[in-house]
Amino acid sequence: MIRFNNDYNRTGHPAVLAALAATMEESYEGYGIDPCCERATELIKAHLNCPEAQVHYVIGGTQANYIGISFLLRPWEGVLCADTGHINVHETGAPEHVGHKCLTMPNTNGKISAEQIKEQLDIFEIGGIQEHVVVPKMVYLSQPTEVGTVYSLAELEAISAVCKENGLYLFIDGARMGYGLAAEGADFTLADIARVADMFYIGGTKCGALFGEAVVITNPAVQSNYRNAMKQNGAMLAKGWLLGAQFAALFTDNLYFKITESAIAKALRIRDAFTAIGVEQFVESPTNQQFFILSDDQMAALETDFTFMFDHIIEPNRNMCRFCTSWASTDEEIDALCAAIAQLPC
Amino acid sequence: MIRFNNDYNRTGHPAVLAALAATMEESYEGYGIDPCCERATELIKAHLNCPEAQVHYVIGGTQANYIGISFLLRPWEGVLCADTGHINVHETGAPEHVGHKCLTMPNTNGKISAEQIKEQLDIFEIGGIQEHVVVPKMVYLSQPTEVGTVYSLAELEAISAVCKENGLYLFIDGARMGYGLAAEGADFTLADIARVADMFYIGGTKCGALFGEAVVITNPAVQSNYRNAMKQNGAMLAKGWLLGAQFAALFTDNLYFKITESAIAKALRIRDAFTAIGVEQFVESPTNQQFFILSDDQMAALETDFTFMFDHIIEPNRNMCRFCTSWASTDEEIDALCAAIAQLPC
Amino acid sequence: MIRFNNDYNRTGHPAVLAALAATMEESYEGYGIDPCCERATELIKAHLNCPEAQVHYVIGGTQANYIGISFLLRPWEGVLCADTGHINVHETGAPEHVGHKCLTMPNTNGKISAEQIKEQLDIFEIGGIQEHVVVPKMVYLSQPTEVGTVYSLAELEAISAVCKENGLYLFIDGARMGYGLAAEGADFTLADIARVADMFYIGGTKCGALFGEAVVITNPAVQSNYRNAMKQNGAMLAKGWLLGAQFAALFTDNLYFKITESAIAKALRIRDAFTAIGVEQFVESPTNQQFFILSDDQMAALETDFTFMFDHIIEPNRNMCRFCTSWASTDEEIDALCAAIAQLPC
Amino acid sequence: MIRFNNDYNRTGHPAVLAALAATMEESYEGYGIDPCCERATELIKAHLNCPEAQVHYVIGGTQANYIGISFLLRPWEGVLCADTGHINVHETGAPEHVGHKCLTMPNTNGKISAEQIKEQLDIFEIGGIQEHVVVPKMVYLSQPTEVGTVYSLAELEAISAVCKENGLYLFIDGARMGYGLAAEGADFTLADIARVADMFYIGGTKCGALFGEAVVITNPAVQSNYRNAMKQNGAMLAKGWLLGAQFAALFTDNLYFKITESAIAKALRIRDAFTAIGVEQFVESPTNQQFFILSDDQMAALETDFTFMFDHIIEPNRNMCRFCTSWASTDEEIDALCAAIAQLPC
Repeated sequence: MIRFNNDYNRTGHPAVLAALAATMEESYEGYGIDPCCERATELIKAHLNCPEAQVHYVIGGTQANYIGISFLLRPWEGVLCADTGHINVHETGAPEHVGHKCLTMPNTNGKISAEQIKEQLDIFEIGGIQEHVVVPKMVYLSQPTEVGTVYSLAELEAISAVCKENGLYLFIDGARMGYGLAAEGADFTLADIARVADMFYIGGTKCGALFGEAVVITNPAVQSNYRNAMKQNGAMLAKGWLLGAQFAALFTDNLYFKITESAIAKALRIRDAFTAIGVEQFVESPTNQQFFILSDDQMAALETDFTFMFDHIIEPNRNMCRFCTSWASTDEEIDALCAAIAQLPC
Repeated sequence: MIRFNNDYNRTGHPAVLAALAATMEESYEGYGIDPCCERATELIKAHLNCPEAQVHYVIGGTQANYIGISFLLRPWEGVLCADTGHINVHETGAPEHVGHKCLTMPNTNGKISAEQIKEQLDIFEIGGIQEHVVVPKMVYLSQPTEVGTVYSLAELEAISAVCKENGLYLFIDGARMGYGLAAEGADFTLADIARVADMFYIGGTKCGALFGEAVVITNPAVQSNYRNAMKQNGAMLAKGWLLGAQFAALFTDNLYFKITESAIAKALRIRDAFTAIGVEQFVESPTNQQFFILSDDQMAALETDFTFMFDHIIEPNRNMCRFCTSWASTDEEIDALCAAIAQLPC
Repeated sequence: MIRFNNDYNRTGHPAVLAALAATMEESYEGYGIDPCCERATELIKAHLNCPEAQVHYVIGGTQANYIGISFLLRPWEGVLCADTGHINVHETGAPEHVGHKCLTMPNTNGKISAEQIKEQLDIFEIGGIQEHVVVPKMVYLSQPTEVGTVYSLAELEAISAVCKENGLYLFIDGARMGYGLAAEGADFTLADIARVADMFYIGGTKCGALFGEAVVITNPAVQSNYRNAMKQNGAMLAKGWLLGAQFAALFTDNLYFKITESAIAKALRIRDAFTAIGVEQFVESPTNQQFFILSDDQMAALETDFTFMFDHIIEPNRNMCRFCTSWASTDEEIDALCAAIAQLPC
Repeated sequence: MIRFNNDYNRTGHPAVLAALAATMEESYEGYGIDPCCERATELIKAHLNCPEAQVHYVIGGTQANYIGISFLLRPWEGVLCADTGHINVHETGAPEHVGHKCLTMPNTNGKISAEQIKEQLDIFEIGGIQEHVVVPKMVYLSQPTEVGTVYSLAELEAISAVCKENGLYLFIDGARMGYGLAAEGADFTLADIARVADMFYIGGTKCGALFGEAVVITNPAVQSNYRNAMKQNGAMLAKGWLLGAQFAALFTDNLYFKITESAIAKALRIRDAFTAIGVEQFVESPTNQQFFILSDDQMAALETDFTFMFDHIIEPNRNMCRFCTSWASTDEEIDALCAAIAQLPC
């Protein structure tokens, strides 16, 4: 069985494991105060063009998201996001668990726009009953989105401008940031992300690490006490150097970017194989997640040798499915899948 | 200025104030353990056909709603409701503040249906990822709804059946319950409500009381410790007899029902005045809230002598407005409004 | 049965009820935006010497306390208080329910001191592990305390100074503020309270109102959005003018102060009666709550005609009991109690 | 610099890292549904004599503690614990953050007793005001305690009996469980722990793992939905097999027990070295944490070559310090420390 079900079904890139192994002979202060974290932060900050940025390491994306939300907001404030936003649909209500409402907007290919945000703010302002409704104070978006699409720099700049004009924080979920940066046609850099966002994270778990996300706080006005929030929410790893060592490995010799570039190249081969036989794309994705609409027979044919994610039934015999590549995907695996696709019933 | 902006713009029905005044010479145990509350509960329970029902008195509707939600649910469970549900749009995120997500469904004239709930449960079940999403465990509906419409008994029974089959609690927000019971064409009783719901409340604030809502818990499986939840949330009035005295007055000689019947008769006169000159109804409402779509000129003409609630602009020159009657509305006030409506520009 | 069990066992002062009745013919905007609240605020602010103060009206003391705490603090911050503090022992964990730890210090006659606070801050600083412990950020005290004692102005100034020097908020629970101001030997005014505290409240429920507490925010740095917090926590009364009317009545012609002065005079008569026959005082109280240690026989003798609060058994045959006066206590009632006390077995 | 500051200053036991490395070639379902977790659970359950036990893997102790508390309790319920309990003093208020009060009792050598719990329950019952106070519903204890002491089986049985008689849950924090089981004179087994507790955890982080705690739920009445709670709180590791693989390694060939036995033997050598020269023990500890009271000179002398934890100043020139061993402590390191101790100024 060859796995394309997600990009976190393997332990981690060998260089990352090697970096962990290399820490075996040393002893460290715990809780993220150590040379490994320092080194990782230095390497990451070299990409940010934001000397005042703080970098913190948490264990997973749900932590990065919900702690960020509760860290930035007061109790009556909420977070504007796409209806498909990860925080809205796949985190068991973590934002609400810590007290904050997701103020959803309809997505277009997984994305929201500056115009939509302005509209929500207008509704809020016109309402004249601001004390009776949740105050929109933060925008959450994922780059790339949950369906693999990528915001252009112009889109990000426009959203950022609306946020700054209206006193909203911009938080970018970068669980797959590496795939966004390496996407076909991507026109933004980490420095751009650092400039447009108040807070974001660079995902490790889905980009070659065993686990871990690097949370970056660029806005100096909200840099106090994030470590308190981490500890209170169980997100401060006792042996914090394990996170630092992994991110230092990923950001040495551009490994992070090589991993995601390579995975995307392979994903686009899958895309081409599907489109070659006329299978309908659910959404045009330039990243490592490819979404296609398969018939029941097509699904059955592929399920014998490959894992992939069945998402939902659009209508009978039209099934939305995801194929995902990662650092671990090999050319041989892609060859095998493409060959199987070429044989699919139409 | 004659007020039709809402049904809680006057202190309270004279009989209710008199009942408060009648407590002046007595002293009482506090916190709702007193003869006034006992008497009110006895009078209310006479309508419920549910000897095991508990009745508790809280101060307002937001309290009744959010405490009910957090009382019934575990942390990862959420509440299915209409997108227009009061808890979703007008309580500053109170349900989320205590940790629970509103799982919204599109409303039809303010209502949701048994079919919609089943669909949501199917999506949840099919998803197969139940630990990653909020578990639907409760249905919230308002009777009457936020736009004045009323669920038929058949609709309530159908929703209740889906809930019972699937282990969901049914919570009914009855902030305007009296207007529902007295609605044109209403086919349900308080005993029906008690039978279909696990928990509901009978609104006082909007039905003639100075303040207060009577929370009824009919499901014996969830009757423990509601008073602890009240106290913890600041909803246990120190001088609890003030709530008991008011509800005892409202349920003596059917005052509660007389108040709402009379208000509805007056509201329907307003409805008829509008429809007589061809003003478009936003929604057909058989209760004390009437929603019409006014032009800018029509709004301006009425605003000189009357208050009413401007809700939102549907499109330029089409403004959704609410006219509300209450115990305090007089025939003379209705005459004046109807006369002004008759003069409106078309 | 004559009641001395607490100071909120009667509906309210006749002038307060009359003020409510006087609102019957008017209609009002809801939610505390009305001439009654404006008038009350004007009357209260005349005592504060703090033109920038905000005044808000909530329904009860638990609300005033826990909303204040969650309004002022970020998630990892806690509140320093006496172990006997109301928030720590009699509010069903309301502060914790909204996420904040009570950092308790041993009380001396119900009070805490500036020195104790400094000590706690020193422990926190020395600890060097600030991210692993709750950050002390607020001091809560009650004036008068739960056992009727009163902080001197010098004590308040000292506590306030420590708070200001260390960036802590000072919150004063004034559920019985009137009794503090009128206490035997009291040397502070409301203007003093406004100067030393960042936020405090003037209790209505226990001082002659039917219900209600006037929350005052003096620190301009924390005046934003309190109304959002009120609404979200169910503490924004729909018919807010009912609170304004009561406080306007209490602060007209110094009724508030007359009520508490008179109650204290009566309480001191009870004190004198007990001490005259040698009953041991639990604590020296200059306010309307008097605490004495009664034998079993003494308790039994008084229980036939009077209610009072049995607090706890200190040791066998030594029972801590509270006798409370209020606006409703009459000279005849005090005469009766004093006569009974004079007859007590020794 | 030789480190005795804590038992989690090194990456992890070589066998544990090897187990992680061994997963490199496989792909897995995520979120803890995998053969590694199954194997670990099988190995752990072999020690429990409790076929119905559930085992879940979380990342750290703070998670295990606060999620357990919020999983077991309703909002108005609190947790009885020692004043020195980890949840009370070293988790940044995590239990309060999720809404629950720590109801503290004075510790004796880090422990609480069945008698103390009974006393608290009596106070609660006698109070007669149960709705105004936090309901004690759970007992939290650490085995071994924060100062290295160990409950005897008789003590655990007595506490468990009080809990069962009174409907309280017993939760045991086993962050250092291995050191408790291997303690000098320990008379309990994991099966005993499983029998007396409703929920407990077996610590990995401090006992040789890189990270991870195995949460065991033995009480079938509270086994539903723990995974939902994990996910909502960011405690469900995406690559869950990383936890399973580590615990499988620790419970293969009794490695877990060998690690802690060996560390304790070394710790007792440190103890003996201190007592040999008459340094006062802070508390008699039979586990890997040793607490001694050092003079300023003694601290200074040791600080040049060794790290240890300075806890607090008992009084001038009497400093409470901790020396900790772990799997990584070598005989040579102990030799060096013991030699240095022998040279200490008296």
